[in-house]
Amino acid sequence: MDIAAAKTALKHLEIDDNPAAVRAKSRDFFWYSPVLKDRLEHVSADFVAMPRNQDEVIQILRACHAHDVPVTVRGSGTGNYGQAMPLAGGCILHMQNMAEVVGIAPGRVTAQPGIIIRELDRITREESRQELRMMPSTAGTATIGGFVCGGSGGVGSVRWGFLRDYGNILRIRVATMEAEPRILDFTGADLARVSHAYGTNGVVTEIEMPLAPAYDWVHIFLSLPDFTRAARLAQDLALQDGLLLKLATVCEAPTAARYFQRFRGYVTDQDSVVALMVAPHSMDGFLSFLAQEPMARLIYRSDANDWPRDPGPAYEYGWNHTTLRAIKVDPAITYLQVRYAGPDLLDKVAAIRARFGDELIQHLEFLRENGVMTAAGLTLVHYTTEARLDEIIRIHEDMGCMVFNPHRYTLEEGGRQTVDDRQLEFKRQADPKGLLNPGKMIAWDRPDWDYSRAYDYAGMRR
Amino acid sequence: MDIAAAKTALKHLEIDDNPAAVRAKSRDFFWYSPVLKDRLEHVSADFVAMPRNQDEVIQILRACHAHDVPVTVRGSGTGNYGQAMPLAGGCILHMQNMAEVVGIAPGRVTAQPGIIIRELDRITREESRQELRMMPSTAGTATIGGFVCGGSGGVGSVRWGFLRDYGNILRIRVATMEAEPRILDFTGADLARVSHAYGTNGVVTEIEMPLAPAYDWVHIFLSLPDFTRAARLAQDLALQDGLLLKLATVCEAPTAARYFQRFRGYVTDQDSVVALMVAPHSMDGFLSFLAQEPMARLIYRSDANDWPRDPGPAYEYGWNHTTLRAIKVDPAITYLQVRYAGPDLLDKVAAIRARFGDELIQHLEFLRENGVMTAAGLTLVHYTTEARLDEIIRIHEDMGCMVFNPHRYTLEEGGRQTVDDRQLEFKRQADPKGLLNPGKMIAWDRPDWDYSRAYDYAGMRR
Ligand SMILES: Cc1cc2nc3c(=O)[nH]c(=O)nc-3n(C[C@H](O)[C@H](O)[C@H](O)COP(=O)(O)OP(=O)(O)OC[C@H]3O[C@@H](n4cnc5c(N)ncnc54)[C@H](O)[C@@H]3O)c2cc1C
Ligand SMILES: Cc1cc2nc3c(=O)[nH]c(=O)nc-3n(C[C@H](O)[C@H](O)[C@H](O)COP(=O)(O)OP(=O)(O)OC[C@H]3O[C@@H](n4cnc5c(N)ncnc54)[C@H](O)[C@@H]3O)c2cc1C
Repeated sequence: MDIAAAKTALKHLEIDDNPAAVRAKSRDFFWYSPVLKDRLEHVSADFVAMPRNQDEVIQILRACHAHDVPVTVRGSGTGNYGQAMPLAGGCILHMQNMAEVVGIAPGRVTAQPGIIIRELDRITREESRQELRMMPSTAGTATIGGFVCGGSGGVGSVRWGFLRDYGNILRIRVATMEAEPRILDFTGADLARVSHAYGTNGVVTEIEMPLAPAYDWVHIFLSLPDFTRAARLAQDLALQDGLLLKLATVCEAPTAARYFQRFRGYVTDQDSVVALMVAPHSMDGFLSFLAQEPMARLIYRSDANDWPRDPGPAYEYGWNHTTLRAIKVDPAITYLQVRYAGPDLLDKVAAIRARFGDELIQHLEFLRENGVMTAAGLTLVHYTTEARLDEIIRIHEDMGCMVFNPHRYTLEEGGRQTVDDRQLEFKRQADPKGLLNPGKMIAWDRPDWDYSRAYDYAGMRR
Repeated sequence: MDIAAAKTALKHLEIDDNPAAVRAKSRDFFWYSPVLKDRLEHVSADFVAMPRNQDEVIQILRACHAHDVPVTVRGSGTGNYGQAMPLAGGCILHMQNMAEVVGIAPGRVTAQPGIIIRELDRITREESRQELRMMPSTAGTATIGGFVCGGSGGVGSVRWGFLRDYGNILRIRVATMEAEPRILDFTGADLARVSHAYGTNGVVTEIEMPLAPAYDWVHIFLSLPDFTRAARLAQDLALQDGLLLKLATVCEAPTAARYFQRFRGYVTDQDSVVALMVAPHSMDGFLSFLAQEPMARLIYRSDANDWPRDPGPAYEYGWNHTTLRAIKVDPAITYLQVRYAGPDLLDKVAAIRARFGDELIQHLEFLRENGVMTAAGLTLVHYTTEARLDEIIRIHEDMGCMVFNPHRYTLEEGGRQTVDDRQLEFKRQADPKGLLNPGKMIAWDRPDWDYSRAYDYAGMRR
C-alpha cells in the first residue's frame, strides 16, 4: 500500500487529507451497535477522494490499483452495520460530487449514485409526478448509491417488497477495480451480483430505479392501549390491496411515551402506536376500515393536524429511526432485526414478548416478501452485555424467528450467514487484488469460515 | 303498472318504444349461460328512457314511481348473469347519454356512469398519465356504471384485489326510487350498500374511482407444454412484489390451440398458455425471472411482435373473454367461477383436474384477496345438462372449492348465497315499492328462501 504514490497520481482531483476530515468521513453509523462501537471506533482511512464524474472514478481506481491502496466507497455514511468503515485504511471514495439526475421517463429514473434520496424524490416529483417505490427512513440524508449498495428496503416495502426483489432496481453501472477499470451494466437477475454488495466488487457510477406515482402521502399516527390489537390492525390494513399504504409500523408501549418527544401529551405509557403513510385517495377507505377497531385513536394526521410542534414524517418514526430515537433518550438501548413470517407470525411475536418481558420492546414493520405479508421486527433491546445479546438472538432462532444480526460488519453475518456466490464470483473478476472495502466479505478472506463466532478481519488496521 | 301514463309524463325526454329496439336493449349477455338462456330468452321491457343528466334521471324515477313502472338500469348490457334483464318489463333506463368525465386529480377520476371504460381510460391517460386500477375484460364495450353495479374485478385485480375492497371505489352517487327521488353520496364502508347491487336500490349518477399510473403495458403470451408448470409460473410471477403486472392468466391446453384463432401455428394441442400484462420497466426483471423456467416459450410480446395478425390485448384472452372465445368456436361450452384459495390452491386445482378429466378445461386468473394471492377458476365446461352442471358445482364444493354460480340471475345466488343486509336495508329506504330491477334480490321478495333450488322470480313477465 503506497498511499503517497496514489495521492501524487491523483493530485489534480479533489482530495482531502486533513486528518480530522478524513476521520469524520471514515465513520458511519457503526456506533449504533454497542458491539461494533467497541470494535470499529479507531478505524480511519488515509485520504478522501471526491470524483466529479465516472472518468475521475476510473482514474482513482486505476491509481489505487497500481499502488495497492484499498478503496471504500462512501455515500452519506448512514449505514448502521459499519458497511462504509475503511477497515484497512486507504482511500475513501466519496460520491457527493456525483449527484445528477440523468433522465426521467414513465416508471424510471436514472441518476448518479451520490444524490440524496429525498432530493432525487423531489426532482422526480416535480418533473413527472413520480416518486421512488421505496426508500430508507434515512432518505433525508442517505444517497441512492448507498441504499442500493448497503440498504435492503424500508418505506414502500409494505407494497413493493425488498429492494433486491426482481424489478425494484432496474440497472446498475459499475466500475471495476483493475489495472484498467471496466464499466459494466447489470440488469435483471445479474443485478444481484452487485446490489447490496457493500461496494466490495465494484464502484457504482449510475443507477436506474423504477418509479411509482407520487402522492401527497398522509402521515398518520394511531394509538391503542393494546399492542396485540395494534399489530393486528396494522397487519390487516397492510393486507387491504385497495388501500395504498407506504408504511405500516407498530411501536409497542412505552416506545412513544418514552422516546418520541413530540408525542408527549398524546400518548400514555400504555399506548402502542401505529405509524402509517396513506395515499390521500385511500383516506376514506382507510377511515372506514379504522372504524372497525374501536380501540384505535387517531392522534395525528398530517393533512389536519393541530399539534403545536409537528412531529415530521411518519417514516422518521419507523424502520431504524425508532431505534435512533430510543438511543438518543437512552444510550443503553440497542436493537435486533428479526424476520417474523408465516400465517402465525403474530403468535410468534406474542411468544417472544412472553419469553422476554421488559428486556425487549417490540417494533414491527409490515412488508411483503414474495407476495406474502411478513413483518420485520426491529426490536428494541435493553443492552447489558454482548454475551446476553448473542443469547437473545439464539433464543429467537430457537423459537423459529430468524435474526439478521445488525451487530456485525460483514455481508454474510448481517445476512443469511452464507456466501452469495454471485457476488463472490464477480469480485474475482472485478477486484482481483481484493482492494474494494476489504474485510466485508468473509467468503473472499476465509472461504472456510464456520460462523461459530463473530468474524474479526485479520487485515484490520489496529 | 301504467306504462302509458309514465310514457306520457316523460314524452319531453329521449324515449324509445320501437319494439325491436326495446327488445335489443332489454337483452344482456345472459345467453352466455345455457341455463339463463333458457329462462330469460323471452324477457323484454316496454320502453327505453335515455336521460341526459341527473335531473332527467330524477324525472324518470319520479314518473315511474308514480305509475308503478319497474325500472332496470342498463349500461352496455355486457353483464353475463342477466343482471340487466328487465324481468317484470317496464322501463329500461339507458345510461349512454350520461358519459362525461367530470374531473381528474392525482389518484382520482370522477365520471358519469355511462362512459365506456376504455374511453374513460383513454381520457385519464391523455390528461394525467393515469389509468383505472382495474377493469373488466369487456372494457372496450362496458360502462363504468355497469362495472361498479354489476362487476367484481378483473384486469388489475392481480395487484389491487376485488373491486369492492376498501379503496377501489371512492364515491358513488345514487338517485333513489321514491315519490321525490333523493340524491345521496356514499363513501368508505357505506359504498357496500350500493356497489354490486345490480341497480336494485338506486340509480348511480356519478362515480369517483381511484387511479393508478398509466403504463404502456406489454402484452405477453407464454406457452408451456405442462399446465401445472404454467400455473406455478403465473403464480410465482404474480407473487413478485417488484414486478408490476396487471394480468396473470393461465389457460389449460387445448384452449389456445382450439379457441384462440390467431394463435394457430404458435401453439400445439399440448400447450397451455400464460397471458400477462407487464409494465415496460418491469420487463428486464420479468425476463430474468422467466429464464428460470426453461419450459416456458415466449411466443408473443406486444412491444416486439411479428405475428402477421395481431392477437390484440392480452386481457381479451383472460377473464370471461376466454369463455367467450370458446363459445364462439364451440357453442356447447359453458363455464364456472371457482375460488381457489389457501396455500395449497394449486393442489386443489390438480385434484379437480384429476377428478373431471376432459369434461373441464382449466382457466385460472390470479388475484389478490385481502393481501393473499388466490386464483379465480373460470373453468370451461363441456355442457351436457343442467343437472350435470349442478352436480359439477356440488363436487367442486365437496372438494373444498367454492363456486360463484354464474348460471343464476340473482345477487345472492351469483354470490355467497346470503343476503347482503346492507344492500337490503338500503333498498327499504331507497326503493320502498320494489320497482328497481325487480327479481334480482331474493331477500326482498322471499326473505325465507332456502337456496335448495334455483330461484324463479314469481313476478317475471311470461
Ligand atoms: C436511523 C437509520 C435508519 C435507517 N433506515 C433504513 C431503512 O429503512 N432501510 C434501509 O435499507 N437502510 C436503513 N438504514 C441504513 C442506511 O441509512 C441506508 O441503507 C442508506 O441507504 C445508506 O445510504 P448512505 O448513502 O448513507 O450509504 P453509506 O452508509 O455511505 O454506504 C452504504 C454501503 O454502500 C457502499 N456504497 C455507497 N455508495 C456506493 C457506490 N456508489 N458504489 C459502491 N458502493 C457504495 C458503501 O461502501 C457501504 O458499504 C438506516 C440507518 C439509520 C442510521
Ligand atoms: C366476455 C365477457 C367478459 C367479462 N369480463 C368481466 C371481468 O373481467 N370482470 C367483471 O367484473 N365482469 C366481467 N364481465 C361482466 C361485465 O362485462 C362487466 O361487469 C361490465 O362492467 C358490465 O358493464 P355494463 O355497462 O355492460 O353493465 P350492464 O350489463 O349494462 O349492467 C350491469 C348491472 O349493473 C346495473 N347498472 C348499470 N348501470 C347502472 C347505473 N348507472 N346505476 C345502477 N345500476 C346500474 C344493471 O342494472 C345491471 O344489473 C364480462 C362479461 C363478458 C360477456
